[in-house]
Amino acid sequence: MIVAVVRENFPGEQRVALVPGSVPNLIKAGATVLIEKGAGTAAGFPDQLYLDKGAQLIESRQEAFQKADVIFQVRSYGANPDAGKADLDFMKPGQIVIGMADPLGNLTAIQEVATRQARLFALEMIPRITRAQSMDVLSSQATIAGYRAVLLAAIHLPKMYPMLMTAAGTLSPARVFVIGAGVAGLQAIATAKRLGAVVTAYDVRPEAKEQIESLGAKCALLQLESEGAQDKGGYAKDLGEEFYTKQREFMGQICSESDVVITTAAIPGRKSPLLVTTDGIKRMAPGSVAIDLAAERGGNIEPSEPDQAVTLDGITILGPTNLASEIPNHASQMFSHNITKFLLNMVKDKQLHVNMDDEIVAGTIATSDGEVVNGRLREMLNLP
Amino acid sequence: MIVAVVRENFPGEQRVALVPGSVPNLIKAGATVLIEKGAGTAAGFPDQLYLDKGAQLIESRQEAFQKADVIFQVRSYGANPDAGKADLDFMKPGQIVIGMADPLGNLTAIQEVATRQARLFALEMIPRITRAQSMDVLSSQATIAGYRAVLLAAIHLPKMYPMLMTAAGTLSPARVFVIGAGVAGLQAIATAKRLGAVVTAYDVRPEAKEQIESLGAKCALLQLESEGAQDKGGYAKDLGEEFYTKQREFMGQICSESDVVITTAAIPGRKSPLLVTTDGIKRMAPGSVAIDLAAERGGNIEPSEPDQAVTLDGITILGPTNLASEIPNHASQMFSHNITKFLLNMVKDKQLHVNMDDEIVAGTIATSDGEVVNGRLREMLNLP
Repeated sequence: MIVAVVRENFPGEQRVALVPGSVPNLIKAGATVLIEKGAGTAAGFPDQLYLDKGAQLIESRQEAFQKADVIFQVRSYGANPDAGKADLDFMKPGQIVIGMADPLGNLTAIQEVATRQARLFALEMIPRITRAQSMDVLSSQATIAGYRAVLLAAIHLPKMYPMLMTAAGTLSPARVFVIGAGVAGLQAIATAKRLGAVVTAYDVRPEAKEQIESLGAKCALLQLESEGAQDKGGYAKDLGEEFYTKQREFMGQICSESDVVITTAAIPGRKSPLLVTTDGIKRMAPGSVAIDLAAERGGNIEPSEPDQAVTLDGITILGPTNLASEIPNHASQMFSHNITKFLLNMVKDKQLHVNMDDEIVAGTIATSDGEVVNGRLREMLNLP
Repeated sequence: MIVAVVRENFPGEQRVALVPGSVPNLIKAGATVLIEKGAGTAAGFPDQLYLDKGAQLIESRQEAFQKADVIFQVRSYGANPDAGKADLDFMKPGQIVIGMADPLGNLTAIQEVATRQARLFALEMIPRITRAQSMDVLSSQATIAGYRAVLLAAIHLPKMYPMLMTAAGTLSPARVFVIGAGVAGLQAIATAKRLGAVVTAYDVRPEAKEQIESLGAKCALLQLESEGAQDKGGYAKDLGEEFYTKQREFMGQICSESDVVITTAAIPGRKSPLLVTTDGIKRMAPGSVAIDLAAERGGNIEPSEPDQAVTLDGITILGPTNLASEIPNHASQMFSHNITKFLLNMVKDKQLHVNMDDEIVAGTIATSDGEVVNGRLREMLNLP
């Protein structure tokens, strides 16, 4: 079993799918590990560290696809639509490709991979079950993004976060409003609390209240909150337009009392719900900062633009789409842990077994034998 | 008594010397308060807020100097050598000018102000006595700088600060090394601790140990630490070259174990001591971040450059010289508190009294009646 790690080539991507610390685990499981030269450099893992752990270096991406049974990528084609397209030509029938592939957002790319007869595992589809927690890249990378969002807001805010009582008077603490209490939201709450901010958080799922309060934040409650706002994967479900209108009014009200707003409400594979309107944002004071972590798919904040800074009445609105990559060392370490666990789940007696009876394998595999094989994706494609 | 606040015109300066909240205190003391239009905008204080508090708006800088008995500035000429030079022509005999003026670093500017017969109070010279604590701009602005330095390092670091134990493995906390435990250093320690970093700190003054440890940081001790490393103002004194050589070796050793180094050792009016050599910095791992808060006067870190990012073997070295201005709202609020207290100390029965028997007044006044009058400055000029 040969596992190859390629250098990421999505613009600005600094992560690497495997860190040196994970190499011994793969070798122990019977793998030969090949690393494309320079793959870990941007994340702070020079080639020598991989060699020290028993990996071998290879010269090119092409060589990686040529030699490997398994390809490890952070962003596979689909999640890397431009530069990643060239990988299609390299893929071999039966070859296993593991990485993020944006299957729900870029189905066409999945179909193209199918024609290459590769077996693509799209890590975004890992089932949200206990046994798969250690493989869940969406969670691990969202942890980083939530932390980073708070720092980004702090750097743009003309105030300090903590309350300070000094000889030069008392500074009141910054008021941070976090919308969406998933992994990213909870980490944002925790980080803002650490830094001394007064934090309010909102989630459409009433179940989130306890988690929000356990972190020391105030939970904002919209009266008409409905039961069943959480799907079986633990994500917030799409509700109806009437509900969202009332929600947006409520959000605008809390925004008017906040120095920082961070929105984290993304629904997998769908356009992000609009939670804060332009009018809502304008209720913030000049100098306030809004960060939209859902900007990639339409955004939770109306005036946000993906990867741009928008200024409106002195309010800064940021829509970063790849925050985890900005803390590449730790993000890669977590990703590497996830992807290694995922592969090892398919290894038995040093041999690869793609066992479709395993809920994790069946939920994550996107393509095989020239077909889109994933049930959820076939449904979206109206295939039987 | 007419007090006028001018708009700062030092490049990048976003602070304002007086915030709306301080206006009523001045009015109650008998002052008329004039604000140059737009003076508070960059710090988040629009003109209307000043009007609401009873201040009057004026059109120009020239008008401010023409009408005022007292000028409030963050950066007076001296601390604003290019754009501030034009103020010389506006100054009137007897006019009081209060602001930072870099008296120990830019004596020539002080002499030029003297020829205008203005009475310049250089806030950097406020004596470090209990009664003057509420006026101490160096302390208040250093508080902001120390906080900001930690955020800046966090934004550049490819790791997170806190230790995280997640389903995707355990991330070890970032190791932050703070050199110099004055106001900026202590705030840097406190902020890094808040964010979850493991913090080590060093100060040449053995007295600092208790303060460092009270914030939860480890105090690094150099054996040959000498008594009397603190001057009567509470600042670290200059020691000898032999001592500094040993100190630098020790610093390099701790740097090699740190992800972030923040240096804050500035000696008023002198070139900053070189604490971390290029070799010392190079002992850090790639991806590490060094921030030199003393870069303006030569720097504590050999390869640092004022207001530039230097990259060396993958290590980022920043030398920001005006960090307080990057959190202009809170920095201005504190500065405003300081400068207002300072002026009110010279007001009795709604009248200004420049009482040279007051230690605070005598220590801070730089020029009067066409002369440099400050004892310390006269000494530097070899005047009797």
